[in-house]
Amino acid sequence: MTIEVRPIRPGEGEALLKMTRALAESHGFLDKYTATAADLERALFAPHPIVGCLLAFDNDEPAGCAFWHRSFTTSRGREVMYLEDLSVLPEHRRKGIGRALLKALAVEARQRGFPSIYWLMKGWNDRAKALYAEAGAECDEGLCYYRLADDALVRLAESSA
Amino acid sequence: MTIEVRPIRPGEGEALLKMTRALAESHGFLDKYTATAADLERALFAPHPIVGCLLAFDNDEPAGCAFWHRSFTTSRGREVMYLEDLSVLPEHRRKGIGRALLKALAVEARQRGFPSIYWLMKGWNDRAKALYAEAGAECDEGLCYYRLADDALVRLAESSA
Repeated sequence: MTIEVRPIRPGEGEALLKMTRALAESHGFLDKYTATAADLERALFAPHPIVGCLLAFDNDEPAGCAFWHRSFTTSRGREVMYLEDLSVLPEHRRKGIGRALLKALAVEARQRGFPSIYWLMKGWNDRAKALYAEAGAECDEGLCYYRLADDALVRLAESSA
Repeated sequence: MTIEVRPIRPGEGEALLKMTRALAESHGFLDKYTATAADLERALFAPHPIVGCLLAFDNDEPAGCAFWHRSFTTSRGREVMYLEDLSVLPEHRRKGIGRALLKALAVEARQRGFPSIYWLMKGWNDRAKALYAEAGAECDEGLCYYRLADDALVRLAESSA
């Protein structure tokens, strides 16, 4: 068994799409998933991109991804890394690919000068929790994640002061 | 009483710092606050910035801020806005300044083509919750917010696979 992790390359958007869709499915919002492979590649290979992605290969088969974006914390006054999607395809799980992606992401963060990586997790995933604890991550529980989107955003923008 | 909201200008980093520090203090992590006004201005007025900020003025006095950064969701395949800090200085609270900042941010999001605004909130702030609900935001509760930082990040980066 060979696990390889490296940055995504142009033309691999379809493989990435499959992984991020698998994650959306396991979180129950595949019906709200509208992105295309072209959307993801456009963002990744844009000038001055705010996103990046590592792919993991299991015996040369695309098996998982760590898709991140640049973020910023006011308390440090500097950019940090935000891990948007860590996904391993079901048939490639329990082989240490999640751990390999997380370690490679830590290397990437160091190379780019980010002092920290942040991410959100639904509270119920015990396997992921164990992985993150082993990696040394600290967790702040009980947060509310707000979303103001689409029609609700327009309504607020057009409301009276 | 006159409330004005507008984008921050060079030279206003100190006013912004006061507001973001006030927020860090109310959340109990002022001891971890290391940013300077220069750090915030450097990020805001950089080429291709990933952050932006609106300031609110109460009778011409700096009273609050909405500090945001560009973000990205894979499910939409596009950039969204993330509200990092919404802060109103204690002596200017209960005047509708939080609401005015949120509305101005919705206008800004629309102008920049962001389909949605996301933010995190500690679960215990009932006043903020009421404001966000009134603004039309939806909330996902019970999330864990992970942070892998500094020494822990270096340890993972340097660990064996």
